[in-house]
Order: sequence, then C-alpha cells, then structure tokens
Amino acid sequence: MLLHLSTWAEIEKFLQRSRTIVIPIGSNEQHGPTGLLGTDWMCPEIIAHQAQEAADILIAPTFNIGMAQHHLGFPGTISLRPSTFIAAIGDWTRSLAAHGFEKIFFLNGHGGNIASIEAAFSELYAEASFARRPAGFALKLCNWWDLEGIDDLAKDQFPTGHGIHATPSEIAVTQWAYPHAIKSVDYSPQIANWGPIREAADFRARHPDGRMGSDPAQASPEKGRQLVMMAAQGLVQEVHAFNCEPMPG
Amino acid sequence: MLLHLSTWAEIEKFLQRSRTIVIPIGSNEQHGPTGLLGTDWMCPEIIAHQAQEAADILIAPTFNIGMAQHHLGFPGTISLRPSTFIAAIGDWTRSLAAHGFEKIFFLNGHGGNIASIEAAFSELYAEASFARRPAGFALKLCNWWDLEGIDDLAKDQFPTGHGIHATPSEIAVTQWAYPHAIKSVDYSPQIANWGPIREAADFRARHPDGRMGSDPAQASPEKGRQLVMMAAQGLVQEVHAFNCEPMPG
Amino acid sequence: MLLHLSTWAEIEKFLQRSRTIVIPIGSNEQHGPTGLLGTDWMCPEIIAHQAQEAADILIAPTFNIGMAQHHLGFPGTISLRPSTFIAAIGDWTRSLAAHGFEKIFFLNGHGGNIASIEAAFSELYAEASFARRPAGFALKLCNWWDLEGIDDLAKDQFPTGHGIHATPSEIAVTQWAYPHAIKSVDYSPQIANWGPIREAADFRARHPDGRMGSDPAQASPEKGRQLVMMAAQGLVQEVHAFNCEPMPG
Amino acid sequence: MLLHLSTWAEIEKFLQRSRTIVIPIGSNEQHGPTGLLGTDWMCPEIIAHQAQEAADILIAPTFNIGMAQHHLGFPGTISLRPSTFIAAIGDWTRSLAAHGFEKIFFLNGHGGNIASIEAAFSELYAEASFARRPAGFALKLCNWWDLEGIDDLAKDQFPTGHGIHATPSEIAVTQWAYPHAIKSVDYSPQIANWGPIREAADFRARHPDGRMGSDPAQASPEKGRQLVMMAAQGLVQEVHAFNCEPMPG
Amino acid sequence: MLLHLSTWAEIEKFLQRSRTIVIPIGSNEQHGPTGLLGTDWMCPEIIAHQAQEAADILIAPTFNIGMAQHHLGFPGTISLRPSTFIAAIGDWTRSLAAHGFEKIFFLNGHGGNIASIEAAFSELYAEASFARRPAGFALKLCNWWDLEGIDDLAKDQFPTGHGIHATPSEIAVTQWAYPHAIKSVDYSPQIANWGPIREAADFRARHPDGRMGSDPAQASPEKGRQLVMMAAQGLVQEVHAFNCEPMPG
Amino acid sequence: MLLHLSTWAEIEKFLQRSRTIVIPIGSNEQHGPTGLLGTDWMCPEIIAHQAQEAADILIAPTFNIGMAQHHLGFPGTISLRPSTFIAAIGDWTRSLAAHGFEKIFFLNGHGGNIASIEAAFSELYAEASFARRPAGFALKLCNWWDLEGIDDLAKDQFPTGHGIHATPSEIAVTQWAYPHAIKSVDYSPQIANWGPIREAADFRARHPDGRMGSDPAQASPEKGRQLVMMAAQGLVQEVHAFNCEPMPG
Repeated sequence: MLLHLSTWAEIEKFLQRSRTIVIPIGSNEQHGPTGLLGTDWMCPEIIAHQAQEAADILIAPTFNIGMAQHHLGFPGTISLRPSTFIAAIGDWTRSLAAHGFEKIFFLNGHGGNIASIEAAFSELYAEASFARRPAGFALKLCNWWDLEGIDDLAKDQFPTGHGIHATPSEIAVTQWAYPHAIKSVDYSPQIANWGPIREAADFRARHPDGRMGSDPAQASPEKGRQLVMMAAQGLVQEVHAFNCEPMPG
Repeated sequence: MLLHLSTWAEIEKFLQRSRTIVIPIGSNEQHGPTGLLGTDWMCPEIIAHQAQEAADILIAPTFNIGMAQHHLGFPGTISLRPSTFIAAIGDWTRSLAAHGFEKIFFLNGHGGNIASIEAAFSELYAEASFARRPAGFALKLCNWWDLEGIDDLAKDQFPTGHGIHATPSEIAVTQWAYPHAIKSVDYSPQIANWGPIREAADFRARHPDGRMGSDPAQASPEKGRQLVMMAAQGLVQEVHAFNCEPMPG
Repeated sequence: MLLHLSTWAEIEKFLQRSRTIVIPIGSNEQHGPTGLLGTDWMCPEIIAHQAQEAADILIAPTFNIGMAQHHLGFPGTISLRPSTFIAAIGDWTRSLAAHGFEKIFFLNGHGGNIASIEAAFSELYAEASFARRPAGFALKLCNWWDLEGIDDLAKDQFPTGHGIHATPSEIAVTQWAYPHAIKSVDYSPQIANWGPIREAADFRARHPDGRMGSDPAQASPEKGRQLVMMAAQGLVQEVHAFNCEPMPG
Repeated sequence: MLLHLSTWAEIEKFLQRSRTIVIPIGSNEQHGPTGLLGTDWMCPEIIAHQAQEAADILIAPTFNIGMAQHHLGFPGTISLRPSTFIAAIGDWTRSLAAHGFEKIFFLNGHGGNIASIEAAFSELYAEASFARRPAGFALKLCNWWDLEGIDDLAKDQFPTGHGIHATPSEIAVTQWAYPHAIKSVDYSPQIANWGPIREAADFRARHPDGRMGSDPAQASPEKGRQLVMMAAQGLVQEVHAFNCEPMPG
Repeated sequence: MLLHLSTWAEIEKFLQRSRTIVIPIGSNEQHGPTGLLGTDWMCPEIIAHQAQEAADILIAPTFNIGMAQHHLGFPGTISLRPSTFIAAIGDWTRSLAAHGFEKIFFLNGHGGNIASIEAAFSELYAEASFARRPAGFALKLCNWWDLEGIDDLAKDQFPTGHGIHATPSEIAVTQWAYPHAIKSVDYSPQIANWGPIREAADFRARHPDGRMGSDPAQASPEKGRQLVMMAAQGLVQEVHAFNCEPMPG
Repeated sequence: MLLHLSTWAEIEKFLQRSRTIVIPIGSNEQHGPTGLLGTDWMCPEIIAHQAQEAADILIAPTFNIGMAQHHLGFPGTISLRPSTFIAAIGDWTRSLAAHGFEKIFFLNGHGGNIASIEAAFSELYAEASFARRPAGFALKLCNWWDLEGIDDLAKDQFPTGHGIHATPSEIAVTQWAYPHAIKSVDYSPQIANWGPIREAADFRARHPDGRMGSDPAQASPEKGRQLVMMAAQGLVQEVHAFNCEPMPG
C-alpha cells in the first residue's frame, strides 16, 4: 500500500490493523559516469514498492535527498547538511507518530546517510529520555543491501569490483526499473580506487569519475531483477518482525 | 530532462547550454475523502515531467514534503515545520548554486507552502545582502495553478465548487496520471465549507472530511489531461522567460 | 489602552474583560529619497494608537524591525533574517499567551513581512499540531492598507503613482504624525519603476532611489489624516470581530 | 538625529562624518504596582532622544523587548529567550555594519539584559575570531545608570529604598516624560525585599508585587528631569569618546 | 565524592541524602607566556576536588571548554561560541535534573564565561517561565575568586600586578597542583596593560603576550596551596548554604 | 605533550614541527553496577596521555561528555543531544583549525558517539563543499578498541562475556589507572543480555543493571595495563600515519 496513492481515511483504517510504516530514504548524488543521480533513493523506492505488491505493508513517500556533501563536486548532487537532515527526519517522525504510528522503518539506500540517520534517531529519543518518559515510537534503520540474502547474491553476481559507490548491484537495480535510462562508457580504470571521505573538493580529486572501488560494467537489468525480488522478500520479513516486536509498557 | 535519470556528466553538459533548473515542490497531506495524500507533490511533478518531454528543460527530483501542519489532524499527512522547510530549501539551493545553476524555479503544488518558500528565499538572499555582494542566483516561485491559461480553464471546467483544498482541478490531474487510484464517496455537503487556517485540531473541527470549499466529484481524468497539457505548455514558457532574464552584473 | 504605559495590575484587570491584544508590526527600511526610515513601523503604530483613543482595545509595544533584507543596500535599513524574525514572533506570542491572551492581532505595515509572519504563525501552531492539542491562541495578520475603506480612499487620493514601496499613502500617514520631518526632492522619474525582489545589491541596481512604482510627491498631511482616521475605525471593527470569534472547544 | 525620522540619503551623508550609532535597548516588563511596563525601554529612549537635541549623534530605533523571562509571571511582560535575543542583536549589528557603521553603542535600560547582550557581542566577534580576521566593528554596552554623575545623583535623591527593580530613579524618568501616566498605590512593605532571580513562578512567589528592594513612592517628575538631563550629557560624552577611539589596523 | 569515579548505583544512593551537585567549569585558553592553557578549568577542578576530600559533596566532571573567542589569536585556545555553550550547559542541566538533582552549582574559573553561563541559566528557566510552571531546579554560578576569603588573601599575596588575566593567583593554584609544569620567562613589561575585549585579532594586537594587567612572576606553589585550601573551605560553605535553601513549593 | 599543561608559545613552536593533534573524546555514563561513570572518557584519556610519554604527539583536553541519551535512565549519566554535540565538535575544530592544525584525530571511547561524530565531520566539511573550496583540515575518528592489536588482545583476555557496554576491557583500563576506585558486586546474570538501543526508559527496562552482554568480573588492573600499553603504541602509529598523509593541494 502506497501512502501517497491513498486517502487519509484509508490510512486511518490501516492504523487499525498495523502501526508500522516503511520510509524509503536515500540520496540524490553522482554515481560515476554511468550511474543515475537518483540511484540511492530509487533503489529503496523500487524495492519497497515491489514489496508492497505482495504484502500488506505501508510505504511512505520517498525521502529523496540525504547527506551527500562529499559528492557536491559533481553536478547534479543535492545534499542536506546533517543538521538539516536531522531536523527533517525529526519532523517526518513527529508527523507519523502524531497519527499513531509506533514502528517507523527507514529503508536506506545510501551509506553516507547512516551516521546522520542514527544521530537523528538519538535526537528524537533524547526528548523522551530527558523528560523521563517513553518515546511512544521505535525507529529502525535498515540498508537495502543488508536485507537477507542480498550480500550473498551480490557477491555471487559480482565477485570482484563491487566496491562501495556506484556499485554494479545498485546500478543493476535501476537498470531493471528504468531500462530506458541505461548508460555506458569505457571505464578507466576498470575498477575504481578507494580513499577516505572528506570534503567535496578532496573527493573529486581522489575519484575523478566519481566511482569508489567499483566496476559498474558488470551490472545488467536481469541481475537487478534478482536483487529487487530478493530484497523485496527480505523487506517483508524484516518489517513483519519489527511489527511484531512488543512496545515497552 | 529528468535530473534523477541523468548522470553527473550529462548535467555538466547541460550546464553549458542552460543555467536553469525546475524543482517540483509540494506537500504530502490529506486531500479530503477521495483526494490522494500525494496530490500536492504529484501535481507539479506530473506537469514538470510532461513539460520536459517536449522542451529542453531540466527537472530536479520532487521536493515532496512541505508545510502542512494544519492537516496533521488527518492520518497520512507529513509536515515540516517552517524552520525545517527553510533549512532544507536552503541546502537544495546551495547545492544547485554550487554547480553553477543561476536560475532556480520552484513549481509549487501547495498553497500552504507559499509563505515558507518565500521566507526561505529571503533567508538565502539575506546572506548576500548582509555581506553586500550579489547572491549569484535568482529564485522564482510559481504555483502550477498560476501558469498561463490554467485559471480560465479551471473556471470553465468547474464553475462552482472549485474551492481551495481538495479541489476538483488538482484531483483531476492525479486521476489522469494515476487512473488506478481513483476513489469516490458521497460528499456531504456536496460543496465543503471554508474557515481560517490555524492548528490541526482546529482545522479538523472546522473541516470534518478535510475539504475546503470544494466539490471533488466534478473531477475526471479527461479534465486532468487538459489541465496537464496546458500547464506543461505554460511551464515551458515561464521557464524560458526566466532563463532569458539577465543576471545582475 | 497602551500596554507600555500601563502597569501589570492594569493588564491583569484588562484580561478579565478581554483576551485580545494588538501588536503594531513593521520594518525599519529605506523609503525612497523622502520617506522616513521608520515609515513601515510608524504607520501601524500611529493607526493603532489612534484607534485606542476611542475604543477599549489594548496595544502592545511596536515590533519595529522586520524582514527587509532587500533594502540593505540603502543606509539606515535594519533587517532580521526570516529565521530570527520567526523566533522573535514566537517569543512575543508565547509571552502573551502565558498571560492568557487568546487572540493576538498583528497590524502590519510592511508587505515584505507577510511571508515571514505567516511562517511564524505556522511554526507556532505546529507545536500544538505535532502534539495533537489545541494551541490555546489564535493569531491574525492584517495589513493596515487592507483595513476597511483604505483601498478605496487611497485609490481616490492617488489614482496614479501609488506603487508598492514608498507609496504616497504611507508617506502621508507619517507626514500627518510627524509634520516636522517632512522631506522633499525632485523625483526622477516622477513615478518609479517596478521589478522582482531579490537580494539587496540587485534591488538597489534596479531601483536607484529606493522607490517601487510610486510618486510620493502626492502625499500630504491632510491625506494622511484621512487615512489614519479611516484605518483606526477599521481596526476597531476588525479587532472587535476577532475578539468575538469563539475559540475552539 | 533620529534614524527613524531620517531618509536613507541623510544617513548616507551622516556616515561621511561619523561611523557611530546609538541603540537604546531595554525590556518590556512589570515594574511593580506603579511602574510602567515600558519603563526599561523608555528610559534609554528618553535619554537618547534628549541627548541628540544638543549633539550631532545618531539614535537608532529602540530595541524594546529584551530578556525578562523572570518577570513572565506578571501580565504584560514580553520576553525574548537569550538565544532569540542574541540572534536579533546579531541581525541589527550585521545590518548596521553593512552600511559602514563601525562603532555600535547600546544604551541599556535593563539589568537582566546585560549577560545576554554581552553573549551576543561574543557571538558576533567569534565569527571574526574563528576566521582570523578583524570584525570591522566595535560594540559597546553602557547602562544608563552607569553614565557619569547618575550614581551620585540617584544616591542623593534616594538615599534609601532605591533597590534594583522598579527603582524610584527609573520611575522618575518615565514620570517626567509621560506625566499623564503617573500611577500611585500604598506600598506594603514600603521598601520591597530582595532575593535570587530564577524562573517566573519563583520570582512572583518571592516578590508578590514585582518590586525588588525599592520604594518607588520617592519618584517625582522633577527628579526624573534632573536624571534625564545629567544622563543625556553623560551619553554625549561617552559616545564622543567611543567615536574617537581608533579602530584596529 | 567524584562522580566520574563513582557508579550509577552510588549516585542513586547519594541522591537520597542530597540533591546538590558541583560542576567545575572553565576554559582552555592562553594564559600569557607562562600560564598553562588549562589554567581556567584546572583551577576550579583543583579546588572542587580538594573540597570533596573533607566534605560529603558531589563533584561532576569538569566542563573544560568555555567562551574564549577573544583568545583565539593565541595557539592552543579552544572556544565555544556562546550559542554552543548555552546549548551544552542546557544539556548538562537537563541530564542532571532528570536524575533528580535540584541544586546545580557551577564553580567557574573564567571571567569570560560569566555572561554566557548566565544567559544559559535564563534560557533554561525560560522554558518553565513560558509554560507557567516551576523549573524544578535552581542554578547557581560562583567564581572561585569570589569564594569567602579569597579576595583578601589574593590582595595580601599580590598587592600590585594581580590584573585580570593570567593573574598570579590562578597561576599559583596550577603551580601547586602541577609543580612539574611550572614555566618562567622575563616579562616585559613586568605588569601588562589593559584594554577593552573584542575579537581575537584586536585582543592580540593590544596584548602581545596575552596577559591583562598581571605580573605572574609573583606566583608560587606555596601561595597556590594557601589559595586552594581557603577556596576549598569556602566552596564547602557555599554548597552547604545552597543545599539548605528551600525549593519553591 | 599535553596541551593543557603547555603555554601558547609552546604550542606555537609545536605547530612548526607538526600540524596534528589528538582529542580524547568519550562520554560520562553509567557502566553497570561496577563500572565508573567516567569510563568512556577516561579510557581514551588514559591511553592518549600514556602515548605522549614516549612520542612527540600533542594531546588536547578531553572531550568528556558525549551522546548518551539512552543511558539517562541511570543516575550520573550526562548527555549532549546530537545537535549540541555536533555544534561543540564544530567549535573545537574551528578553534584548532584557526591555529593551523590540519589533522585532527579524535580518539573515541564510546560506541554511541560514532554516528554523531561522523555527522559532525560532515557538517564541518559541508561548509567547504557548498563553497567549492578545500576544508583546510582533515578529521579522523578512531575508537581505541580499533587500535592495532587491541581486538586480538581483548579476545584473548576475555574469550566470553566481553559484550558491548561495561565491557571487562574498558573496566580493566580504568582499574589500572584508578586502582583506588575498583568496585565489585555479584553479577546476576553473570553475562548480561543484549537488545536494541532506543530511549532511556526502554533501555533501563531491557538492561536493569546497565550492562550489555558483558561480564565485568573478568577485568583486572594487570589486563588493563596490557591494554593501555598496546593501545598507546597503536595510537602513536596511527597518528604518525595520519600526520604523514599529504593534504590535498
């Protein structure tokens, strides 16, 4: 069930059978010479939308701009500062909690978001902790590549050159979903290098075409389909387990 | 051209021929008993995506959560506080300006956003004004219903009961784009009442089903199609005019 | 009744008969070659002080610095950023609400304030909306030129060259109240031009003497007196209507 | 010279002969059973306006709401939080510095403002200090009761029962300036008690009528006149000395 | 009793016999050619740790970075902006109040901290004042040099050349506690000059070696011992008096 | 070399031979029935102070309060919100960068700090990234348990019951450094349970004595000594490698 294609009355009814919602969250940032700028928010969106086809889970609109300051050296990247990101995650959560959602599940598509999302969770919990009261909601962060089976599948599909940015697995997912937007170039080197992550100017100097450790040429729509199907299944399981967890008295 | 389906290299190339970008911006909020929660961000997205089919304009990802605090009494609404909204618009703008975009066009789908978007513009300009330097970018807010021809067409389509929230025109637009998500109920009263806009509890007490002054039963996919086509044309014109405006020396 | 010339005990007594207060709010900013820098906060102050001569309404001290970033290219302008303005309106409102004021009426004298004041209202209401409780107060923004009769009178007095900044009507109001501070120059052109409003450097380049669309030479103290008397009457009516409006249960 | 009764062109001219401006700053807060709520912002305003009659100094509009959280238990008090106060003083200063003012003199009327004003100065200077550059402006805080001669005169006028809040000296100043707003009651006790300053509920419990250590019955318009005349003279001297101080290279 | 060397269970037990805690607070900043960078946080730490040897008082970890923006021109200084400082003091206080501490005593070692600490107190109290409720805690600021007997002793030890920064008394305290870190130089001039405190560049230009009005050559470990012993005794008395003060009903 | 026991002139000299500084950073929070509240900031402090005995590295004062909101259910815990923590790390970094430090190494002692420290780094880098300029400094986060050899040694010392909070390894470190503050109880169960980390009330309900997965009874001062010596050696290596890394042109 997609929240944005529902009415408020339908959500009111949903809340009678579940207090759990899934937010696809990612980033809009460069993904090397062939990866789409939307890759990191489209991957969790694709997976979450696929998952709700077969299961009664509720998917919020996609939180599409994340923490990508280090990619700002490449045109098209849009980034929030961590402080803005924390404020926005706070307002999303407060809105949903006001409606009675108690389990808020963030399906994340960008490694660079993790620290700021966890900081946002702590910022939210701290309100309750300082006030010595229960928060009234539980927050969960889950990267799509950590869903059950994905790591094995990706290692199987891409034994070398997977890397950590503009990876063939994330590019495969978008190739399956957006076949008309597949791009190709000759990569040089075939597998990109690695390095520490600092400010944008430093990042672009270290990674001239934007990739980190990856060889995106190995991606294919079919591999993307396999990843999406397995991730959708894993997501349903994770959400079910989270939904069943008891809230503290 | 859709930014999220492009690579950074394609955007770098685009910047050689234009410094203008369009951001669809809206809100995710209740739209009465039949309107979709995503209506206000989907309308500008639908129109902007349609417009770029026929013209060389660049569309950013959709800014889908806006200022909707007064709708929080209805499940599914997600709102940013104005201060968060201002911070986020600031970071989007700073990101795009860092790439060299000089004309940033916000195509808005939610009346409740207008004040906060304008405040965000002033917050951004103020940095330059305090520092006695040019801002380096020009910001423009345009509501889709203010695009050329739309007001006349909507008055023609819906001579009575258009209202200001959950209007038949916006619902028609989403009906055309998402025909499988058309909902219907018996409205009572047929045309909803009006009132001042304050906090959420007050709003829900005044507007029990969420509508303000509207009769959404008049919406149809065909009327939506007419609105989208005219709006897309109007958008191309507006963007072209904005693009041609000289930047201050 | 002027709050700043009252004691706390007198205000405590006033609260037994009314829960409504009027805050004159404006801006301190350039008003062309002859307009006073204080014009935009003095106009609502003059009108509100006049209104309380004949009616039992309570006037707060004047909120004299507003959002005027675009005028910072002209010496003497003092501006708050929108974020500061929102914070300050918040603290004024929280202070008055703590005393039991339930209807807070902002009589505004500066068009550039409108967006930020409305954003401030939403920021305040959002606290209640996220917490699912009534706000306990209602906020109203009213520009003095929107008071009953003023638009007609101004059109009658100044059929051409009224414009939108450094207008003959606002200058007339200050001429009546501060006759010793009347200034004059030869305007060139007689009626100033218009343009979009962006950062200060851009504004000064477009409007070399600070006016927008106006011919202030038409102002006179007598026209000012007529405007003040009509506006004072209109204010009493508006405040009375607001005061009578029931608060939500 | 009063800034709010001047045009921008007059301020531009003033800046050619002086880079110094005086901001009367105070608070709007309870002043015991007979003191006016505006006492603390009216005193520095009265003195500063008097001073500019005889000397070529420039007076900004009055900053009339300060840090008075401890008085919020008494109706009519309006307070900024320190964080808001710091932000607002920052924007005033940035605005004036943008015009070329280099010496900004705050004539203060409220003891409770001192810490927050000094914190605001440090916040402003810190921008330059972190950036290893000169600030470009010097800020000075001066309480009107610290102006030359005032302490001796007040001790002479009020050998006992001066106290520190709702003092006979500040009430005398407002009596001279606003003779129609003189109030009187029987004080009990004649001289009020003292205590630590904490939150508003605590303050009102300790000081039931709002006074701290004072006997306002000793105030008279004539004593007020003497204070204003001496303070105005002292202010001119202080401003002159500040104006002459060299700016760091 | 030192909090950081205790377990939570020991603190839980302490709270049954006292609701008071002491926080040593200072600054890490240049202290002239021979003073240690840690002087201002080590002095209150040394005194507080000494005091708890002989009395049942609880000492929190030391708040070691304060407001020292004016010293940033000298390497090794670390400063918080006032806004950060206020936020941090807020979180320390909220943490301790959540555990039931009702009397929070800040033993301060840096004059430059005073304004910001008091602003922080007001920021915390304002939450309660706006909400019309008791704060639940009382905050006290006490500089170690204001403890009973210290002023007389310091005047006796250093009749001339005490000054206000890098004073012989504070340097003596650190000499007693850290005898291996005693430094010496020839001072020129023997007694340093004074001046206003503004941004860092201005400060360093006025005070080339960092001292203000002081002759640190007079410090000795023995004088430090005398100061520490007297201050520790004074602290126990002050804390006892604060602890005994009744909380408002 | 300890910064707080140095003079500014000594730091000025140090900067001629190195641009690197180490900040011990931790948290003050409950560590089970026997762990000291200061454990998480004392461990990195102990290791860093040990390391500088044998190598020419510079150690800043300890950043002793971190992000520990989940431990606020246990008395003695003091926590910053992530937003405050980010602001404070920002000011520490800006201060040090102003002096010319280019490599700032945070030696961390608390797992709960990691996300907020990384968010703080991104917040700092983002300033440079939005402005399209180099940051001028590189930031590095290193947990003391990730220093070379520590993981193997701890597994060897504590093959079972190490856990993740109130671990025998961290308690051993403090036992070695503070032998007079060793505490003991009978643990029940011997090895504590695990669970998700949310707000404080939830945490205390899940972990009644504060431990997570650990059996602190295995700690001993001798094991602590081994850990400190190995960590000190590892730290010197890490700092050396970081110091040698070239800064981007």
